[in-house]
Amino acid sequence: MYLTASLHRALQRDPDATWTTFKGRTTTVADHAVRVARLAGALGNLGISDGERVGLWALNSDRFAEALFAVPWAGGVLNPLNTRWSPPEAQYALEDSGTRVLLVDDVFAPAATELRKSCPALKTVVHMSDRCAVPGAVSYEELIEGTRPVEDQRRGGDAVAGIFYTGGTTALPKGVVLTHANLLTSALGSHATAPTVQAGGRVLHVAPMFHLAGLSCWVAQSMVGGTHVMLPTFDPGEVLATIDEQQITTALLVPTMIQMVLAHPAIAERALTSLRVVLYGASPIAPTTLRTAMERFPSASFVQAYGMTELSPVATILSPDDHGDERLLASAGRAALHAEVAVVDPDGADLPPGSVGEVVVRGPHVMVGYWNKPAETEEALRGGWMHTGDAGYMDERGYLYIVDRIKDMIITGGENVYCAEVEAAIAQHPSVAQCAVIGVPDDTWGERVHAVVVLKPGADPDPEGVEKLARTLIASYKVPRSFEFRDALPLSAAGKVLKRDLRAPHWEGANRGVH
Amino acid sequence: MYLTASLHRALQRDPDATWTTFKGRTTTVADHAVRVARLAGALGNLGISDGERVGLWALNSDRFAEALFAVPWAGGVLNPLNTRWSPPEAQYALEDSGTRVLLVDDVFAPAATELRKSCPALKTVVHMSDRCAVPGAVSYEELIEGTRPVEDQRRGGDAVAGIFYTGGTTALPKGVVLTHANLLTSALGSHATAPTVQAGGRVLHVAPMFHLAGLSCWVAQSMVGGTHVMLPTFDPGEVLATIDEQQITTALLVPTMIQMVLAHPAIAERALTSLRVVLYGASPIAPTTLRTAMERFPSASFVQAYGMTELSPVATILSPDDHGDERLLASAGRAALHAEVAVVDPDGADLPPGSVGEVVVRGPHVMVGYWNKPAETEEALRGGWMHTGDAGYMDERGYLYIVDRIKDMIITGGENVYCAEVEAAIAQHPSVAQCAVIGVPDDTWGERVHAVVVLKPGADPDPEGVEKLARTLIASYKVPRSFEFRDALPLSAAGKVLKRDLRAPHWEGANRGVH
Repeated sequence: MYLTASLHRALQRDPDATWTTFKGRTTTVADHAVRVARLAGALGNLGISDGERVGLWALNSDRFAEALFAVPWAGGVLNPLNTRWSPPEAQYALEDSGTRVLLVDDVFAPAATELRKSCPALKTVVHMSDRCAVPGAVSYEELIEGTRPVEDQRRGGDAVAGIFYTGGTTALPKGVVLTHANLLTSALGSHATAPTVQAGGRVLHVAPMFHLAGLSCWVAQSMVGGTHVMLPTFDPGEVLATIDEQQITTALLVPTMIQMVLAHPAIAERALTSLRVVLYGASPIAPTTLRTAMERFPSASFVQAYGMTELSPVATILSPDDHGDERLLASAGRAALHAEVAVVDPDGADLPPGSVGEVVVRGPHVMVGYWNKPAETEEALRGGWMHTGDAGYMDERGYLYIVDRIKDMIITGGENVYCAEVEAAIAQHPSVAQCAVIGVPDDTWGERVHAVVVLKPGADPDPEGVEKLARTLIASYKVPRSFEFRDALPLSAAGKVLKRDLRAPHWEGANRGVH
Repeated sequence: MYLTASLHRALQRDPDATWTTFKGRTTTVADHAVRVARLAGALGNLGISDGERVGLWALNSDRFAEALFAVPWAGGVLNPLNTRWSPPEAQYALEDSGTRVLLVDDVFAPAATELRKSCPALKTVVHMSDRCAVPGAVSYEELIEGTRPVEDQRRGGDAVAGIFYTGGTTALPKGVVLTHANLLTSALGSHATAPTVQAGGRVLHVAPMFHLAGLSCWVAQSMVGGTHVMLPTFDPGEVLATIDEQQITTALLVPTMIQMVLAHPAIAERALTSLRVVLYGASPIAPTTLRTAMERFPSASFVQAYGMTELSPVATILSPDDHGDERLLASAGRAALHAEVAVVDPDGADLPPGSVGEVVVRGPHVMVGYWNKPAETEEALRGGWMHTGDAGYMDERGYLYIVDRIKDMIITGGENVYCAEVEAAIAQHPSVAQCAVIGVPDDTWGERVHAVVVLKPGADPDPEGVEKLARTLIASYKVPRSFEFRDALPLSAAGKVLKRDLRAPHWEGANRGVH
């Protein structure tokens, strides 16, 4: 079981089929494979051998897809970076993982060449571009042109496929270590539970492919064979035009995207009947939005997947049939065929149906652990189960309902924001004495980041100043969108901030959903 | 990934659903689970702990299904014995694997209690019966009644699930060692490629469940949840009646069974529209038979699976869509999503489409090896690929066609017969000087076992005597159905019998198919 087996299968079945489509450029399976084999050779020449990390910091493109195969083909390990990260965040992931080679597109080339100066482990920046490489970087196209194809190392099974950094509950992100078997088991099991892609189908990649949700769509469509259609950024009008013009059969859309697509005027003009599956997840969706989407995409089946990076990523699935039952629209579905899901009390004991506890997951798709973090790994995987940090209950038929998050995390527009990281940034402002960050309901983003601040004696409220400082330290999506100033924070007897009390007035009457 | 996870999933979804139906007796999921947990406790008391082998020698029944879960639940390893074996063959498998406990039904209880006397490793025979246990055996029902349920050991992943004996190319069978991950990967991958079972479906087990083909249907239906309907033996009229009365949704039938069912007069009287999938494989099928079957079961999709015990068992699948293309009916299908399939020359190099070579398979479903046979294991798995012993070619779209067998083996009525084993038995007759066993075409069984014998000087042909002797040494399905006496066998320059030359006159104008 290895990622590049999908490419060998596609070559065996139809080498002339279109594998990628990006900005009007199409590449066949055979051409894609040759470019992958050449790029793998070039990576080998750059010192990438068994288990070496290769970073990938780029928006979705056909070259992004080539790199996803070329790295394991060369024997390397993928380290896809969040495209919304600030340079210091990227630097942390590169240094923590010891990444030697970083592939970047035009957007990230300037930042990456700067990073190389301050990041001794990072030896080479490769610039994926239609133009010449920027100074300090090597040209991707010249590497491919100047290198002979090499044999696939067929790195697979329990070998590490990638390290995927997610926001940490401390101020620092953690590298989630996933094997080839992890990723392919989730793909195979999800496909066996409720297929989202079809052989010969055309999947739209508009959700970022560095993220496990987007990546898992690439794994699935690659596995069954078909065409990857990439959009580098999300624009609702462009999504509608692409579905129509590219005859898209499967689209992964996070709820925020669905809302924006539904609200766009072009939805009435575009032919959307090629769409056979809309896959959604990653954040709460309002049942009314879902119902509207089901009306607007009448040819499509709806599939909801619930999971997290640590689960490669799928744990439960709400199938197309389940969507026919109005009562189930608020559920995250049932355990996928590869996953075991349970709801447990703080001692790890199974809870009966209807009782709220922590959602835990077990199976061959559960991560190996957090890179170089044995204590955090042991804590997350205690008792052999992945502790999701989500609070939920299961009904009598095994349907899971997520009611809250145990981990202190916000999901805004599909991105995970760990409060501790934001709090650490805000705390650096000279006027801030104490601060607590919470998620509050937001019509567009599901939740938005909200900061409750206690000022130092004599200081004046300065939300603009705090925001400006935060922007230099963390990704913009993590920066609070609203502020509230108080004299003190509510504390528990043990001295912990009672975030529940801070959240309560905002959430009265609102729904919590899945991420 | 472990077999008993299916039972936990079923308990989570619908404990009151019917899990097994056998001779008018039905058992719910919850009752089945309690019996499994009690039986596991009893096995523990009989000394079965992590990795200990438990034999199972019985026709299909609900108790057979209980044992399939109870053995891993107790931490043990399954050793299902061929129901067509003679006692010496069973003894070999029990001794070779060091099996301590043997579960048997009424048919095999007398032979098993005899075996216990000559087989020191075998400590206990457990008699699965509605009646009292035979002398020398322990009562299965009393064990279940008298033991408290124990916790599931959740033996799984790369732990061994079973040892499955198949006829050897030498005179002795080999134990194929399969892990939980092996079996579940084949089930998950096959289901993702072309589903043969449905959640809540009703599968008919009439093919023997000790065999990997039958067992894999049990794994698949257990995984998605549903009802197992067992028939202990094959009778075409009973199969038709059961499909009708039990509203069967999936049936695995080997081609010989399909032929006999199609020829039975009751086919015109029975309602067969509940049947959604007919799964077939294990031996050649004539396209005309297949076409007739597709007409007679109009509600059913047809799925062909090609594989072998060593592949847990599925390698390629001919999907329902493929069956719509007349030209593909002679194909064994394409690589399932979990498998990599190639055709190679004797040096292991890939052959281009259309060239005949050996079919080799790689993937997480390939056996660990042959039990205690490192040399045979290394030979079979050389270069990281399982060498199937089948000769075939692949077309330009990845469809596999099997043209011959490289291994010296006959498939008669879905059973593998290794010629060397039959030859060794025949050679024991005092009048036989030399002998070569081949498969010849047979309208009912696909192939039948045919012996070419060279007599000792002065001896008279005595086919009845040879047959009688063979019956005491090997299973009846391995005993030659026809004999031919010659003065000498055709030999190659290296002194090997040229079986090709012996087979040629029989096979002129006949088709070879898949097994």
